[in-house]
Amino acid sequence: MPTLVMKFGGTSVATLDRIKRAAKKVGVEVAKGYDVIVIVSAMSGKTNELVGWVNETSPLYDAREYDAVVSSGENVTAGLMALTLQEMEVPARSWQGWQVPVQTTSAHASARIEAIPADNIRAKFAAGDRVAVVAGFQGVSPEGRITTLGRGGSDTTAVAFAAAFEAERCDIYTDVDGVYTTDPRISDKARKLDKIAFEEMLELASLGAKVLQTRSVELAMRYKVKLRVLSSFEEQSDEAGTLVCDEEEIMESNVVSGVAYSRDEAKMTLISVADRPGIAAAIFGPLSEAGVNVDMIVQNISEEGRTDMTFSCPTDQVARAEAAMEQAKTNGDINFHDLVADENAAKISVVGIGMRSHAGVAAKMFEALSREGINIKVITTSEIKISVLIDRKYMELAVQALHDAFELEKAA
Amino acid sequence: MPTLVMKFGGTSVATLDRIKRAAKKVGVEVAKGYDVIVIVSAMSGKTNELVGWVNETSPLYDAREYDAVVSSGENVTAGLMALTLQEMEVPARSWQGWQVPVQTTSAHASARIEAIPADNIRAKFAAGDRVAVVAGFQGVSPEGRITTLGRGGSDTTAVAFAAAFEAERCDIYTDVDGVYTTDPRISDKARKLDKIAFEEMLELASLGAKVLQTRSVELAMRYKVKLRVLSSFEEQSDEAGTLVCDEEEIMESNVVSGVAYSRDEAKMTLISVADRPGIAAAIFGPLSEAGVNVDMIVQNISEEGRTDMTFSCPTDQVARAEAAMEQAKTNGDINFHDLVADENAAKISVVGIGMRSHAGVAAKMFEALSREGINIKVITTSEIKISVLIDRKYMELAVQALHDAFELEKAA
Repeated sequence: MPTLVMKFGGTSVATLDRIKRAAKKVGVEVAKGYDVIVIVSAMSGKTNELVGWVNETSPLYDAREYDAVVSSGENVTAGLMALTLQEMEVPARSWQGWQVPVQTTSAHASARIEAIPADNIRAKFAAGDRVAVVAGFQGVSPEGRITTLGRGGSDTTAVAFAAAFEAERCDIYTDVDGVYTTDPRISDKARKLDKIAFEEMLELASLGAKVLQTRSVELAMRYKVKLRVLSSFEEQSDEAGTLVCDEEEIMESNVVSGVAYSRDEAKMTLISVADRPGIAAAIFGPLSEAGVNVDMIVQNISEEGRTDMTFSCPTDQVARAEAAMEQAKTNGDINFHDLVADENAAKISVVGIGMRSHAGVAAKMFEALSREGINIKVITTSEIKISVLIDRKYMELAVQALHDAFELEKAA
Repeated sequence: MPTLVMKFGGTSVATLDRIKRAAKKVGVEVAKGYDVIVIVSAMSGKTNELVGWVNETSPLYDAREYDAVVSSGENVTAGLMALTLQEMEVPARSWQGWQVPVQTTSAHASARIEAIPADNIRAKFAAGDRVAVVAGFQGVSPEGRITTLGRGGSDTTAVAFAAAFEAERCDIYTDVDGVYTTDPRISDKARKLDKIAFEEMLELASLGAKVLQTRSVELAMRYKVKLRVLSSFEEQSDEAGTLVCDEEEIMESNVVSGVAYSRDEAKMTLISVADRPGIAAAIFGPLSEAGVNVDMIVQNISEEGRTDMTFSCPTDQVARAEAAMEQAKTNGDINFHDLVADENAAKISVVGIGMRSHAGVAAKMFEALSREGINIKVITTSEIKISVLIDRKYMELAVQALHDAFELEKAA
């Protein structure tokens, strides 16, 4: 029988009633003839509670014990989901990571899945089970310890199972009904996309559209897993939600697929840095070691052996960045006149695979922002994305202006 | 190094602060040179919450899924305890049942431990670990499913580990500071016993003194595990608590060690049963099938082929007992005139291994009750125990009178 993977996130299994609602959706697919692998998260709030206990007990915790504790939430949901399906007379059982087994690396708290032998679950399907309910987010290390995959890891579990079982599709049920051209809370013209290419989804995921974990999209792209994002709170149909797929499967698409934003960005400028070969490494090495996630980087034209170096990072990392730079100055590794932090920035990006074949997207973007009087602080581009840093107070305005300019409310 | 098993119940690990307090007690034993196996229960209230969810989801639940769900509470405590010990710089790790592995039967929700291979934990001790924190109450079946041992199962886990590792002692930390001659809430003369024999503890446990689970005492008796009950909320010393041990180790003891009671007993009388060979089986077979826990049984002298049959059971099983008897009558399996239920009974027992060699204990007991004008409804005896059923309103009075009569406030 064909296999389907269905993943339910924390809000979709937050209560016994919601677990029942999710189980009904599983029942629909079973009735269609699928063997279904259900991946469940912990009931919402549970993982945070467990993480809180671990942090309070041991701020610099042993990640192996962290994993042993926080993985328990998914086990509870898996058992309850199996029981709920059994009540509906759907033959089902729960599987914990070590029972499958989901083999991972030993990198506790951020382990990577290495293999998912399909034999055990396949044998149960052959023996009459119709659903395997798998606790997401967890696996087992070569040493036999429990591992977890890091936040949002259940998405990755789902895609990995879809790849291992060559599933027809991997449906990610969540609290939104798909991927939108932009955040509907910011623009009421936001339109749900029927399809989006893996590459676009990757850019959107990493830009803060929290629908899917970046790693799960990467994995889906590598193994060509058809990924569908849809709401667990609405009626399901084969056309519901958004399909994340290979760009070849998307016949027509807009040049730009979506406008993403990231609210809490800071623009940091090192004024009058002594310019010399290797200066970039001398600056960004210490920042990386200090755990600062540097995003955009711009170097101004050098004058008389000195230059200004600008970069962006999340606002909550500004203090860390400043400390790292002062330390590097004290060490004599770099020399600069001043470090200016602008903590009132936001990043706006337009994303679309159509950009590859269409010129003029950047010009259109800058023009639209200019018409609204929005000044651009920093610009970066990739093959399918253009990002700008602007004043945070213009963020909503910029998103709306760009959504209008690229006519995203209209389907291709 | 000698091994010690320490078990902490739900109230002893109810909060992070209490886990810390328990961990300090473990640290004391580690400092003395013991390798310590710590058995933990779920934080108090957690197991009830999980059981509630299972019952609400599926009243006639699949016990395999029940076990998968309810075992998760102990995993959380085990991880948190290991982290707490690590914070105290005591090398420790957590062990879930399947990791040890604690091999059990497949009788889910009431599995029995079959074997505990010591190799894995011994190897970690050899490598420098000083504490193995084991999730109590759980194991793994031959099919690789998670099992649980039934309520109070963590006591059994503790004793089984003490036997498997030939531990010097098994310390059960709980919310009382030992075993008393009777319930201190009923008699302010109740005295803590320094030692009690396994056989006496077994009788007391089954009589409702909820200090230790009956099965754990049976197991300790079979494997000669020295069991100590002590409070996790008081200072520890080698003399603290009550030692449950072989009677040979008890030099002097009172004839009677304790007075136990069971509050909610019902006396059921089948009036004028047609007496014939096999009539007892015809009565108690259906009661057993209906899940009625029959305790005391008395058959009156038969007259003209008819007899009265009296038995006791917990009051909350009266309706079930009545239904079973009516059904047996309808089926023609038994014939009786009437079934009279007296739901206002309580059971009082005196227990002591000294009874074996001392006559007159029963007479002294009946005399003491008679002096208080307490009528005895039913009597049963064993080698080391005499139990009577009385009116519930006299329960406290009877306990106090018997405690006085046998001078239990005085040590032997």
